[in-house]
Amino acid sequence: MSKLNDTLKLVRTASRELILLTDEQINKILLAVANAAIEQTAYILAENEKDLARMDKDDPKYDRLMLTEKRIKDIAEDIRSVSALPAPLGRILMKTIRPNGMKLTKISVPFGVIGIIYEARPNVSFDVFSLCFKSGNACVLKGGSDANYSNCAIIKVIHSVLEQFGVNPQVAELLPADREVTAEMLQAVDYIDLIIPRGSSSLIRFVRDNAVIPVIETGAGICHTYFDEYGDTEKGAAIVNNAKTRRVTVCNTLDCLIVQKDRLSDLPVLCRKLQDNNVLIYADTSAYDVLKGQYPTSLLKPATEESFGTEFLSYTMAIKTVDSIENAIKHITEHGSQHSECIVTENQSNADLFTKVIDAACVYTNASTAFTDGAQFGLGAEIGISTQKLHARGPMGLEELTSYKWIIEGNGQIRD
Amino acid sequence: MSKLNDTLKLVRTASRELILLTDEQINKILLAVANAAIEQTAYILAENEKDLARMDKDDPKYDRLMLTEKRIKDIAEDIRSVSALPAPLGRILMKTIRPNGMKLTKISVPFGVIGIIYEARPNVSFDVFSLCFKSGNACVLKGGSDANYSNCAIIKVIHSVLEQFGVNPQVAELLPADREVTAEMLQAVDYIDLIIPRGSSSLIRFVRDNAVIPVIETGAGICHTYFDEYGDTEKGAAIVNNAKTRRVTVCNTLDCLIVQKDRLSDLPVLCRKLQDNNVLIYADTSAYDVLKGQYPTSLLKPATEESFGTEFLSYTMAIKTVDSIENAIKHITEHGSQHSECIVTENQSNADLFTKVIDAACVYTNASTAFTDGAQFGLGAEIGISTQKLHARGPMGLEELTSYKWIIEGNGQIRD
Repeated sequence: MSKLNDTLKLVRTASRELILLTDEQINKILLAVANAAIEQTAYILAENEKDLARMDKDDPKYDRLMLTEKRIKDIAEDIRSVSALPAPLGRILMKTIRPNGMKLTKISVPFGVIGIIYEARPNVSFDVFSLCFKSGNACVLKGGSDANYSNCAIIKVIHSVLEQFGVNPQVAELLPADREVTAEMLQAVDYIDLIIPRGSSSLIRFVRDNAVIPVIETGAGICHTYFDEYGDTEKGAAIVNNAKTRRVTVCNTLDCLIVQKDRLSDLPVLCRKLQDNNVLIYADTSAYDVLKGQYPTSLLKPATEESFGTEFLSYTMAIKTVDSIENAIKHITEHGSQHSECIVTENQSNADLFTKVIDAACVYTNASTAFTDGAQFGLGAEIGISTQKLHARGPMGLEELTSYKWIIEGNGQIRD
Repeated sequence: MSKLNDTLKLVRTASRELILLTDEQINKILLAVANAAIEQTAYILAENEKDLARMDKDDPKYDRLMLTEKRIKDIAEDIRSVSALPAPLGRILMKTIRPNGMKLTKISVPFGVIGIIYEARPNVSFDVFSLCFKSGNACVLKGGSDANYSNCAIIKVIHSVLEQFGVNPQVAELLPADREVTAEMLQAVDYIDLIIPRGSSSLIRFVRDNAVIPVIETGAGICHTYFDEYGDTEKGAAIVNNAKTRRVTVCNTLDCLIVQKDRLSDLPVLCRKLQDNNVLIYADTSAYDVLKGQYPTSLLKPATEESFGTEFLSYTMAIKTVDSIENAIKHITEHGSQHSECIVTENQSNADLFTKVIDAACVYTNASTAFTDGAQFGLGAEIGISTQKLHARGPMGLEELTSYKWIIEGNGQIRD
């Protein structure tokens, strides 16, 4: 047995103890972890400094890696919020009595052990621990080597609180920051029930392609907003601007505005505010002709084939003209990533058609795709946004970190 | 692009048309398929005969492969039952209005395309088609080469009905019965949303280990029944006999009886009926001593290490003696496959402890594990029994063949 498997076996064993904790006990421990994070701020920052010292200040990862007093306060606040959420365990999902008198109850239970693979953000360690712990799961954390000092410090703080409460600290295990560990971890079907990768699309693809353990994919969002023949111009302008510019590096950001040809003349208004953020537009011929002279020349370029079906993650977007809602749907079906898609329309039957036919995690009518987020959906917290259809789709909160079991209570029943 | 991917792309496209069918239309088509199966009995049996002619009559697969007039009648009846089930699509799983006025609805939708890999049973082709079609999914069937004539005939019957109703027949595609096709199919992430293997544990393991597409594992059941210190002997005897002998080749069958040491003297009664079916018992030392002279000598052997944690799938079982419920739970945790586990007890707190701590799809108190089955649980139909925790656990019915999407209806809302 490999050293990693030795460790994972202990995590599996520790995970079983969690089932006996009540939600009250879990919440008490989470609050103590939040307090410990605050109390240990100096220690965590000193360790974080060691990670920062190894990194170039101009590297975009530098900011993501950096912890500050303010950031630790926010982290502690987030842990407190998780503790205040309703218990995701023990929910009765179905209850019935069979004709033979057997009582059947379908009840939510933890997965057991959840593996999380992530990159440079050390705050993820606290974040993931609190969500897994609240949902009764042990977690196996595989952080990036860039953040290793920070992650070790964080896990030490968590362990000391767990020990204080008599909980086996191995319910939160940080794995060595070696690449080989990831590959081995993905094969550990006997010890890990679920893997969630958080990070770049290449990391996610690697995990999906190499894991034997079930995976929930998160990530890529190629998002469209369709301005329909019956769209309201003011709503459209606000939605397009918000969906594109609120935060360009996240997955729910607008990548392509589709416009119905009879409304091409509205384009200058729809794009009015985009220039304030220097949004570069790749427009198809019809859209280009309308925007020319109405939108800064330096920010307007003719679209090419590559302009469509691209997740820009920057102040860049494409515009596509269509002659009908059917062709808007067709374009989205061919180029979208089934993440978040929007129609701007005042016509209910067009809204209904779009909503029914578009195959995506989140389908919007007259609202910004920027809302695709666990907190915005009222889930309280979010471990990621699933881009697959198995188990969870779209924002994943605590309930999505649970499985279920069937409890069958009989009085001697046997099957014919 | 490979030939297989060409085919799968057409299935993907065809699957999108299904979303526009109503449940009424779906049911009408299913009833027509049931009628066509009956009408085409002679044709199907003639093609089935060609498969049978290639197989040795003594091969246990022969019976599984064989169709008869009666079996086709049963198949048609099953399809009619599926059509009569409630629509699994369009169920509102959650509905809420956010503080900003956005309406959020979480609604069940099809996966899209489901791939099923199975072995010699041709009835699975009808079965899987009806469940996928009822749940709005296209299906890609990869049957065994032994059943290829039969499967081709069945798919031809299905296609002719689909065409008659103006539905693209590619919503049910039978792939060539080559082994290489399976390997390629498991990589087709762009075209298949979910793979369900049905068959031997080696097939299931191969699929799990090689698929890039999400998989639902079905299969292995190493099942225990624990006769507690407070067990009722008559109930226990009936449950043990039923769980062991009702059908030995299925996954919910009893493999190991665990007995609390103070109740060892009940063993002869608990095992009384097993000898009628020549059940071979591997008993640990304590159990062996009690059963000696009370159970046929030829059917009683000392247990070895291999006797525990084995799925026998035959008239064979093991007996383990424990000194406490805690050690019964420990034995199950170490040797079970998280499928179906049972406690026989009249003590409520022991029942509660067992139910809470045992990590299995189905946890029974005083009832036979033979009930682990979609129809017995009232799910109406079953595509398999999931042995994983992601998405579905235990018997999977039509609802488990659906995913969901979030529908967000706004009036111009943007995010701060």
